[in-house]
Amino acid sequence: MAQQHLDPTDPATAGAVTGQALAAYLRAQATQFLRALRLHRETGGSSAGDAAESVDAARALRRSARRISASLHTFRPLLDPDWSEETRPELAWLSGTLGLEHAYESRLERLLLALHRLSGATMFPARAVGMAAAGSRATAPVTMKAAPGNAGGPAGSPTTAERGTLTVGAAKAGALLERQLTLARTRAHSTALQALGSSRFHAVADKVAVLASEVPLTPSAPTTDLSPLAAAAAERLTDAIAALPLVTAGHPYNAEALVHGLSPDPSPHPQDGPWHQVRLLLRLHRYAGEVLCGGNAPVNVPLLTAGQALNRHRDASEAAAAAAQAARTPRIAPATAYALGVLHADQRHEVEAARFAFQQAWRKQTVNAP
Amino acid sequence: MAQQHLDPTDPATAGAVTGQALAAYLRAQATQFLRALRLHRETGGSSAGDAAESVDAARALRRSARRISASLHTFRPLLDPDWSEETRPELAWLSGTLGLEHAYESRLERLLLALHRLSGATMFPARAVGMAAAGSRATAPVTMKAAPGNAGGPAGSPTTAERGTLTVGAAKAGALLERQLTLARTRAHSTALQALGSSRFHAVADKVAVLASEVPLTPSAPTTDLSPLAAAAAERLTDAIAALPLVTAGHPYNAEALVHGLSPDPSPHPQDGPWHQVRLLLRLHRYAGEVLCGGNAPVNVPLLTAGQALNRHRDASEAAAAAAQAARTPRIAPATAYALGVLHADQRHEVEAARFAFQQAWRKQTVNAP
Repeated sequence: MAQQHLDPTDPATAGAVTGQALAAYLRAQATQFLRALRLHRETGGSSAGDAAESVDAARALRRSARRISASLHTFRPLLDPDWSEETRPELAWLSGTLGLEHAYESRLERLLLALHRLSGATMFPARAVGMAAAGSRATAPVTMKAAPGNAGGPAGSPTTAERGTLTVGAAKAGALLERQLTLARTRAHSTALQALGSSRFHAVADKVAVLASEVPLTPSAPTTDLSPLAAAAAERLTDAIAALPLVTAGHPYNAEALVHGLSPDPSPHPQDGPWHQVRLLLRLHRYAGEVLCGGNAPVNVPLLTAGQALNRHRDASEAAAAAAQAARTPRIAPATAYALGVLHADQRHEVEAARFAFQQAWRKQTVNAP
Repeated sequence: MAQQHLDPTDPATAGAVTGQALAAYLRAQATQFLRALRLHRETGGSSAGDAAESVDAARALRRSARRISASLHTFRPLLDPDWSEETRPELAWLSGTLGLEHAYESRLERLLLALHRLSGATMFPARAVGMAAAGSRATAPVTMKAAPGNAGGPAGSPTTAERGTLTVGAAKAGALLERQLTLARTRAHSTALQALGSSRFHAVADKVAVLASEVPLTPSAPTTDLSPLAAAAAERLTDAIAALPLVTAGHPYNAEALVHGLSPDPSPHPQDGPWHQVRLLLRLHRYAGEVLCGGNAPVNVPLLTAGQALNRHRDASEAAAAAAQAARTPRIAPATAYALGVLHADQRHEVEAARFAFQQAWRKQTVNAP
């Protein structure tokens, strides 16, 4: 599809940000995606020196895929509907698949750091994690970030004093979580590798390659003002936030997040759902701002802080669930189960703390259609 | 010892509150003590109808004993030193011994309520406690407050729906805590009964009976201004508060209280000590105010709130320790241990919440020598 140029003297579009800007944004993100893909192919699966680059490349791939997908959603009426409907789920599949390994890795890191904090250990965080995870990284997955000097060698072995900072329960809980989450991460790694070699992936990559030069705008899109669609995204966000229990969240220590912490319900935290939803809507809102500002969006600190709080909310929620799940492992020692209970409650309080942080940040923020 | 009367025209004492006021306060508290003792003897150990009165009487005994003991401490230079040094430890022994049963009872109540809250149960609190505790109160101790309609009869049996609100782990944890704390409470009850029948107790009661008519002031006490001693008590309080980590406490969700939650140290919470100390100093300060105002001390809401926060701090700290202690019971099921871990962490967060509440109340409060 050829790019259409506007007459800047057209009063209907003078000063307005139009579909042209959307096309430019999508082309730029598609180019980023292709660059990340090239880098990933050059570094993926090879020596340890390239592992960090491979992680960066996978992150950049996800980053662009998320932005393209979000723009397809927010500005749907301006894009060829068949193409959009075909492309968006594929991008979501890709960023989901590529993100899982990292999610398991950071979940394990979060839980091991919490176990050390709860044990009153004063170790350097990276070392604490390296220590607890040492010994099981003989076959370090490509996208693992190895802590310096801790790549499975004897430098990573804990000293007796360091071991002494963990109770038997905390140490066993850490080992159990490590086994379970490392297994999950390894599986996610294989799945991601398979995905990147699949014909499904090649089809997505081809679509994005086309997007880098030709954006399938509708005929009227180049002269259509983007603001109403961006405003609608902002409105969906504010509506969702208005439905959150923000008054409660603004009262510290409201003890809401741990209610149902011992519930017999297998998925006891439906209360997290609306917050996860706001996290996604906030991201859509932020990306819409990027489209309108042509990549020069001014940094909105409260919005950024609010988004970080919701990321933390999601991470803590999933870490708490992983601790609860590990506690259901058959035949564990009571001391292990006790440590996992403390850990679960600790992460649920992190959930509550993140809601408080979101509430505080949001007070400073007024959503304006960008 | 004869009461000495002041010349109100003496410029040294005009307008000042002197040892006379201390004597009046001690006489009044001693009278309260004797009245409570008489009531306790009339109601103690008898039928269930008198149980509530017996509880009230024991509480009133402790209330007066605390106030007399505190005044002996704060205004020590105005009282016969031999008599003070002999009397004060005996009053402390008495209020400590009488308080233990109530402490175990309310600790169990706190923990069972928390278990129900953590299970997402929406039961009426009194019933929740009555339910969990039903069946083990066949020999209800005299000072047990029975929930209406729940005194071990079938009305107190939980319905299936109510049982369903607890997981196996939570239910077993509740039963374990109930066994342990009921045993401790029963022992405390026996100890209190023995104490009340002991010659040691009769000696204290005799001392208090004398105090009701004759306060052993030093010769100069009746003309001595009480303010400097009360101010010194206030200063000890402010000094102790200044040493508390109030900046941290004022940041919600600082996660300080649960640090060492999994520490191998058998007494992992020395951080609670300074707060317990402030709780005692705050009480001394409050009672000194009562002495100076002759029982007409105006209600100082922030001070009262601060004191309540420290009571809650102490209760949650001890409840958390009881949960951790129960988790060390041999051969418990992992699900029980898990529930106790969640419960321990929950109570440690209550500790943190109480510190936050204290910090908030204290900001509104300026200590003046009363």
